Amino acid sequence: MASHGFWSLGGDNAGANTGSQSPSTPRAWCQAAAQKLSGGIGSKLCALLNVGEVEKPAEPGAKQPPQTAAGTCGCNKSCNCTKAAVVFSDLYSTDLLPATDGDTKTMTFLQEVVDILLAYIVESFDRETKVIDFHYPNELLQMNNWELQDEPATLDDILISCRATLKYAIKTAHPRYFNQLSTGLDMVGLAADWLTSTANTNMFTYEVAPVFVLLEYVTLKKMREIIGWTDGRGDGIFSPGGAISNMYAMLLARFKMFPEVKEKGMSSVPRLVAFTSEHSHFSIKKGAAALGIGTESVICIKADESILVALVQGFVPFFVSATAGTTVYGAFDPLIAISDICKKYNIWMHVDGAWGGSLLMSRRHRWKLDGVERANSVTWNPHKMMSVPLQCSALLVREEGLMQNCNQMHACYLFQQDKHYDLSYDTGDKALQCGRHVDIFKLWLMWRAKGTIGFEAQIDKCLELSEYLYNKIKDREGYEMVFDGKPQHTNVCFWYLPPGIRYMEDKEERKKHLHKVAPVIKARMMEYGTTMVSYQPQGDKVNFFRMVISNPAATFEDIDFLIEEIERLGQDL
Amino acid sequence: MASHGFWSLGGDNAGANTGSQSPSTPRAWCQAAAQKLSGGIGSKLCALLNVGEVEKPAEPGAKQPPQTAAGTCGCNKSCNCTKAAVVFSDLYSTDLLPATDGDTKTMTFLQEVVDILLAYIVESFDRETKVIDFHYPNELLQMNNWELQDEPATLDDILISCRATLKYAIKTAHPRYFNQLSTGLDMVGLAADWLTSTANTNMFTYEVAPVFVLLEYVTLKKMREIIGWTDGRGDGIFSPGGAISNMYAMLLARFKMFPEVKEKGMSSVPRLVAFTSEHSHFSIKKGAAALGIGTESVICIKADESILVALVQGFVPFFVSATAGTTVYGAFDPLIAISDICKKYNIWMHVDGAWGGSLLMSRRHRWKLDGVERANSVTWNPHKMMSVPLQCSALLVREEGLMQNCNQMHACYLFQQDKHYDLSYDTGDKALQCGRHVDIFKLWLMWRAKGTIGFEAQIDKCLELSEYLYNKIKDREGYEMVFDGKPQHTNVCFWYLPPGIRYMEDKEERKKHLHKVAPVIKARMMEYGTTMVSYQPQGDKVNFFRMVISNPAATFEDIDFLIEEIERLGQDL
Repeated sequence: MASHGFWSLGGDNAGANTGSQSPSTPRAWCQAAAQKLSGGIGSKLCALLNVGEVEKPAEPGAKQPPQTAAGTCGCNKSCNCTKAAVVFSDLYSTDLLPATDGDTKTMTFLQEVVDILLAYIVESFDRETKVIDFHYPNELLQMNNWELQDEPATLDDILISCRATLKYAIKTAHPRYFNQLSTGLDMVGLAADWLTSTANTNMFTYEVAPVFVLLEYVTLKKMREIIGWTDGRGDGIFSPGGAISNMYAMLLARFKMFPEVKEKGMSSVPRLVAFTSEHSHFSIKKGAAALGIGTESVICIKADESILVALVQGFVPFFVSATAGTTVYGAFDPLIAISDICKKYNIWMHVDGAWGGSLLMSRRHRWKLDGVERANSVTWNPHKMMSVPLQCSALLVREEGLMQNCNQMHACYLFQQDKHYDLSYDTGDKALQCGRHVDIFKLWLMWRAKGTIGFEAQIDKCLELSEYLYNKIKDREGYEMVFDGKPQHTNVCFWYLPPGIRYMEDKEERKKHLHKVAPVIKARMMEYGTTMVSYQPQGDKVNFFRMVISNPAATFEDIDFLIEEIERLGQDL
Repeated sequence: MASHGFWSLGGDNAGANTGSQSPSTPRAWCQAAAQKLSGGIGSKLCALLNVGEVEKPAEPGAKQPPQTAAGTCGCNKSCNCTKAAVVFSDLYSTDLLPATDGDTKTMTFLQEVVDILLAYIVESFDRETKVIDFHYPNELLQMNNWELQDEPATLDDILISCRATLKYAIKTAHPRYFNQLSTGLDMVGLAADWLTSTANTNMFTYEVAPVFVLLEYVTLKKMREIIGWTDGRGDGIFSPGGAISNMYAMLLARFKMFPEVKEKGMSSVPRLVAFTSEHSHFSIKKGAAALGIGTESVICIKADESILVALVQGFVPFFVSATAGTTVYGAFDPLIAISDICKKYNIWMHVDGAWGGSLLMSRRHRWKLDGVERANSVTWNPHKMMSVPLQCSALLVREEGLMQNCNQMHACYLFQQDKHYDLSYDTGDKALQCGRHVDIFKLWLMWRAKGTIGFEAQIDKCLELSEYLYNKIKDREGYEMVFDGKPQHTNVCFWYLPPGIRYMEDKEERKKHLHKVAPVIKARMMEYGTTMVSYQPQGDKVNFFRMVISNPAATFEDIDFLIEEIERLGQDL
């Protein structure tokens, strides 16, 4: 079997119009196109050139009638090129590669999927499209047959499932999707993720992921340089998210102080205590619970007094997690002051920059992280502010070798010591995980495509939009800001007060009403599908909107739209 | 801006051949095609129809000369359709969506990437292609410019980087790639992973992943039914790999016995001890180290005597991890006997079926896991034996509600209690992670495409191939088996003895030589790029080959090839 490129198709139809002679009539061209190209392209092109416009894509989720099954020719009757069309309703996954002669069918099928995806992408960026076609869980369960069966489905059914899945998905690329810290869809990042899926390998050894391992090495070094560690020295890993990165940091801090904990467990060490910022992410407590430290040993720090109290009580402070960009307010802890305290008491200093770490790439905003270079470890999630597709979270560590010592178990089936290449590239034993997903390529390729200055521009723009929003609503009638002063990150937290409660005199009554406003507006946003933004209560503060901007597709007009929409949906409340 | 479907392109070229009139000459057709379709398709089609064959794809990794930059028309001079061609060397990522009028450029770019991927896929399944184009790390670092820059690269450079990355990647889909427990590339799984990347969302709430959350619910229930839990009741989660799934199980077992550990840490509980099989995966020890239990408290169990010893010593046994399919030998622990012991001492029984769990789908082989229904938790990795793209690992738990209680931290910015839909679908607080990658869709879509019987056939075939290999070499001259009897899974462990050492009398000398044979043969395999198979030492056994078969593309002939190749590469040793 010879090597095939995508475009050298038509092996099965050899002999028909494959010579150097060009077909001489439009109909012959059409037939040649349909024969040489996979169904999706061939027939659609054929349709395009014959009738001047394309068959409309079927309503996603709707069962297509057999005569228009994807892949059959969409031409009108003047064309007779069904010969080469692939009829997906007659095919099963077993007809695809590695099946003998599965090349053409496979490429036609994958191309059909890609066409569905490309249409979805273009639609996602279109402001006329809904962000979400919302349905309640019990409704959605009945809108398609989602059950798994003993018997196989046809490829046509598979394509229908793909369309249905996208129909009810959130369009996270939509310029008016502001719901999470991770929003937007980068085209180079997406291309890189498709390539990653196609390469389908594992990060544990150089042997099975030579390029990706090198790219992780190059990228982590670059990130450490940006943090400010000399020559980018140190260590690091891409983990399955910020929570796990933070847990890694806590694990390293404990091991650094008490290496015997690895073999002997927590019974060999004194009572430990960790400190974190008041509004730190819940993953610090989750980590403490998992690692056997206990959530009660995580203290929300306000000053170094609490460290002294802990010391007096016989606890051993081992870990301080400062937050660079809190989840709700986007606040930055004073890293220099915290590092002084950590130095004084010899405590591991971690910076949870999952959300705010990316500001290190902005010459205008990186001062907010001044002192980060004094940290022992830093969490930095490119899948948030840098819009790298999910998941992409890095833990950077200042000390070399510690991760390996902390986590290694020397599995000799994987990390053979007599391999023929430099074993320092087998990084798997640094990880808590065995297999590790390739999260590096999308970041690396995006970085290459944008350059550091491209990321900087993207980040600066999000902060500008946020400032625009803040300036727009801070004195606007019907708005109250949740915290004083200009936001440090793109988080703008505010209440919208509908006219009906704006002048309520009974403060408690007003608060009670106000608490219900954001959930109702949010529910209406989802039902209309026009935009999505998050809300929550915090402490004694009733439900407020937390607007965050990480979506590179958003513009000043989208911010205007958001405000208009909140007012439109909330005016009767 | 109106909603665009992929094929309703050409907005920029409006007026040119967009009417219902068909172009009447071949050249006009060519121009119409190139204008209406994105560069990659249009120009390639144009080339195809004009000259009868396609421009050869450039040597991956090689810088293309400007005149043949991807996207410019590959036609010979009789065609003049460069007008609509997209010249990637003039474009940057900022020209793609969300840029105004970025639709066409985006689709052309993504289509070009897809063309690269499709060519790679077809090549990967071709036995004439190398499994790997191997280079040592220091060489590979110099074979391309992998460094990250401040300035952006053109899209042409990005495409070159994609080609270079694939050129030096391992072809994990290759029928002769046997190196890991995860091999092969399923076309429906791949399509699903591309869709997942495009949807780019997070599993934590129904709000942002309605369909994927439902599909996870449906699939986990189905997996629990297959385990044999009544009505598929119970709980579960998809985690970033088997090691994390196993750690989750240990975490749940500890919490079940001592719920106070969550708040108070390990100092509030007695000395715990866990038991696992002698050849269990190293993740059990990694988990114990991370959770503060300590590796010394993980005992390799041989009988229930060791539990008694631990009890006498004042330890509290809390967790037994039985292995269903060990990593190296593929052995299955006797689950019924182990469950009797766990019941007797009231210990959490976990089954690590990361590798062997998939045999539950085979009516012929599932008896090897008899008793699994008595377990409290089961790890089962569809990304191994079921060939689902990486990563896809499930932890199934018998008790409902325990995961939530163990891991929840009630983050009110994410899990608002006054949302307008059924909150039981917000599963994020069950997880150790905050954001969680969408790993479900590829499994669900593959299951739908194959049906349960399709997975069964695929698994049975791998076991048949393994039996074929075992029968072929067990009495063959120059081979020795590492363990007695027929393998229980697809693991066939053996030594190949080159003629030179086959009859050595000095046993120690022979052993010393033999230890070097597998690493050299493996290095040669990689240098020739013909096949890849794993080797390792174990205990007092010198390096041996561990052949595993999970690759659905492999055939009897590939097994024959492997043996011939080992003999060819090793005969002079």
